[in-house]
Amino acid sequence: MDEQRGKDRTAGKNRSGKGIDDLINGVRNGNRAMLAQAITLVESHASKHAEKSQNVLNGLLPYTGNSIRIGITGVPGAGKSTFIEAFGQHLCNIGHRVAVLAVDPSSSITGGSILGDKTRMEQLSQDPRAFVRPSPSGGTLGGVSRKTRETILLCEAAGYDIILIETIGVGQSEVVVRSMVDYFLLLMLTGAGDELQGMKKGVLELADSIVIHKADGDNKQKALTTKEEYNQILHFMKPTTNGWEVRAYTASSYSGEGIKELAGTLECFIEITKKNGFFEERRKSQLKEWLYSMIRDDLERRFFSHPKVKKELPLIEQNVYLGKETPTKAAREILGIYKEEGD
Amino acid sequence: MDEQRGKDRTAGKNRSGKGIDDLINGVRNGNRAMLAQAITLVESHASKHAEKSQNVLNGLLPYTGNSIRIGITGVPGAGKSTFIEAFGQHLCNIGHRVAVLAVDPSSSITGGSILGDKTRMEQLSQDPRAFVRPSPSGGTLGGVSRKTRETILLCEAAGYDIILIETIGVGQSEVVVRSMVDYFLLLMLTGAGDELQGMKKGVLELADSIVIHKADGDNKQKALTTKEEYNQILHFMKPTTNGWEVRAYTASSYSGEGIKELAGTLECFIEITKKNGFFEERRKSQLKEWLYSMIRDDLERRFFSHPKVKKELPLIEQNVYLGKETPTKAAREILGIYKEEGD
Ligand SMILES: Nc1nc2c(ncn2[C@@H]2O[C@H](COP(=O)(O)OP(=O)(O)OP(=O)(O)O)[C@@H](O)[C@H]2O)c(=O)[nH]1
Ligand SMILES: Nc1nc2c(ncn2[C@@H]2O[C@H](COP(=O)(O)OP(=O)(O)OP(=O)(O)O)[C@@H](O)[C@H]2O)c(=O)[nH]1
Ligand SMILES: [Mg+2]
Ligand SMILES: [Mg+2]
Repeated sequence: MDEQRGKDRTAGKNRSGKGIDDLINGVRNGNRAMLAQAITLVESHASKHAEKSQNVLNGLLPYTGNSIRIGITGVPGAGKSTFIEAFGQHLCNIGHRVAVLAVDPSSSITGGSILGDKTRMEQLSQDPRAFVRPSPSGGTLGGVSRKTRETILLCEAAGYDIILIETIGVGQSEVVVRSMVDYFLLLMLTGAGDELQGMKKGVLELADSIVIHKADGDNKQKALTTKEEYNQILHFMKPTTNGWEVRAYTASSYSGEGIKELAGTLECFIEITKKNGFFEERRKSQLKEWLYSMIRDDLERRFFSHPKVKKELPLIEQNVYLGKETPTKAAREILGIYKEEGD
Repeated sequence: MDEQRGKDRTAGKNRSGKGIDDLINGVRNGNRAMLAQAITLVESHASKHAEKSQNVLNGLLPYTGNSIRIGITGVPGAGKSTFIEAFGQHLCNIGHRVAVLAVDPSSSITGGSILGDKTRMEQLSQDPRAFVRPSPSGGTLGGVSRKTRETILLCEAAGYDIILIETIGVGQSEVVVRSMVDYFLLLMLTGAGDELQGMKKGVLELADSIVIHKADGDNKQKALTTKEEYNQILHFMKPTTNGWEVRAYTASSYSGEGIKELAGTLECFIEITKKNGFFEERRKSQLKEWLYSMIRDDLERRFFSHPKVKKELPLIEQNVYLGKETPTKAAREILGIYKEEGD
C-alpha cells in the first residue's frame, strides 16, 4: 500500500508522460497508482487526451466485464456511503476486490456531496482489497456517465470483481446508473411511507432490491414495519429484472445486521439472472444503449451548437409558443437552415 | 347532418383539388366534410401534401388551443370505447362539442383494433355535436403522434371544445398521448390489484385520475374495494400534475353511474390547473417537446438512413458486442464516417 501511494505521487508529476503500454500493463497488474492515472486520463476533458484514453481502454477491453456492477441510490442522508463502507468491507472479507465509484450530477454545481471531502469510507479506502474513487467533477450528466462507464472497465481490468456505484436522486442520475449496472439497490428510511412521497416517481421501479436502512436502536421495529409496507407496494409492481422478485430488506451499517444477508441476496440474484440469460442480455442492451446514446448526443450537440441554429432557433421557438407556426413547420424551417449550411 | 354527409361524398371526389383557403374556411365554419378532408391531408404520407397541409394548419392556428384535451388509456377490453361513448354523450348533453381521436400503435401491424371497424361508438358518431375519427393508419408511433397532434388543432379550429383521445397500452403510446393532453384518464378493471401486475410500469404515474370501470351488477362491490386499494397505492405516489391529487373513482358506462361525477372531477381539475398556471405551463412545455422531438427525430432519421452508416454500423455494433472496441470509440468512428460524407 504505502509503496503504491508513493508511486502515485511520483507518477502524478509526469502523468501525461506515461506511455499507453505502461498504463495498460500497470492497470492489468493491479497497480493502484496506474489505475488512478488511467482514470484521470479517461476523465480528462482535453481533446488531446481522448485518443490516448481510447487506446488505453481498447488495450484493456479484453480484460473487462468480469465484475458484478452494483448501483446504490437513495436520498441524501440515506446512508449510502456508510452502507457502502459496511457492505464493501464484508465483500472484501469474503474474498472480493471492491471498487467504489460515484455518479454525482450535483458535483458540477455544488462542488460534490457524495464521496467528496466528507467521504465516510475511511476504513474501506485504507483496505488494500478496495479502491475508492471520488466522483468525476464537471461536465453534464451524459459526460459523467461516459466517464463512469469507462472507469468501470478500467477497474475491472485492474482485477476488481465488485464495482459499487453511489448516486443520489438528482435529475436523471438513477436512470443513468441503472443503465450501467447489473444490480440496483435502493436505500430507504423508515417513516411509514412518507419518504416515498418525497421520492421521485419511478425510482422504486428501477430497483432490484430495497433496503430499509438504519434499522438499529429505536428505529429497528419501525424499519420492520416499513419493510412490510414496501413489500405490499412491491407486490403490485412488475419486476425490473426477469425472473427476480423485488423485495424489501432491513439493514444497519452501524450494527452490521442484514449486511451479510444482502450479500446472499446479491449472490442469489446473480445466479438466477446468469442462469436465465438475463444477465448477458442486459449487458448487451446496455452496450447498445451506450453506443446509440453517444451517437444521438453527438448529432444533437453538432446541431444545437451550429452558429446559424443558435441564432435562429430562439426566434422560431418563440413563434411556436405564440401560436404563429406549428412545431412541424418550425422544425422543418430550422432543419432546412442546418442542412443548407452543412455541419 | 345529412346535407353535410352529401357534401362529404362530393368533396371526396376532388379531394386534392380543394384550395387552401376553402379548407381553412370550411374547417372554421365547422363543416364536417371539410374537417375530414383537412385531417386526411394532414395524415397523408405524400410529400407533395406536406406543404399544403402546413399552410392549412398555419392558417387555422389562431383558432386553436381552446379545447380541453383528454387522453384515455387502459388495457384492451377495459371498455375505453364504450366509456368514451358514454362520457362523450354526457359532455355533449351539458353543452360541449366533442371530437374523438385514437392513437393506436398497433394499427400499422394488426390493421387496428381501437376505433376501427368494430367501433362501439355508434350513438356518439351519429350525434351532430360530436366528431369521431378513427386512428390514422400506418407509420411509426412518432408519425402517428405528429398526425394526432395536428388533428387536435384542426378539430379545435372546427369548434370542438373537448378532444378525447383513446389509446391502448402498446409500446410507448401512453407516454406519447400524455405528452399531448391536458388530462389523462386511466381505465382499470376490478380484481384486487392483479391487473396492476399486468400493467406496464409507470403508467399509473402518468394518470391524473383512475377509473375502476364496469362498476355494475355483481362487479360493483368489487369495484369499490379495488378503488380503495388503488387509493392506498396512489397515496404513496407523487402527483403527476401540480396541485392535483390523483384519486381512483368507479364508473359504469352501462348504468351511467359515475359518469357525471367524472365530468365534475374534470371540471375541477381544469379550474385548479388554470388557476395555478400549470395548465398553460404544461401546454407550453408540450409545444417545446413537440418541436424538439421533431428535430431529434429528423437528425436521427438522416443519420441512420445514410448509406455509409447503414453499411458500416452493423459491423461496428458487432465489434462493440464482441468487446473489440468501446462504444465511445465505435461512436466516434461511425460519426466520423458520417461527417466526412456529409448528409
Ligand atoms: N443509525 C444509523 N445511522 C446511520 C447508518 N448509516 C449511516 N448513518 C448516518 O446517516 C448519516 C448520513 O450517512 P451518509 O453515509 O453520509 O449518507 P449518504 O446517503 O451517503 O449521504 P450523501 O452522500 O450526502 O447523499 C450519517 O450521519 C451517518 O452516520 C446506520 O446504519 N444507522
Ligand atoms: N359490464 C360492463 N361491460 C362493459 C362496460 N363498458 C364496456 N363493457 C364491455 O367491455 C368490452 C370491451 O369494451 P370496449 O369499449 O370495446 O373496450 P376497449 O377498451 O375500447 O377495447 P379496445 O379498443 O379493443 O382496446 C365490451 O364487450 C363492452 O360491452 C361497462 O361499463 N360495464
Ligand atoms: Mg454519500
Ligand atoms: Mg376501443
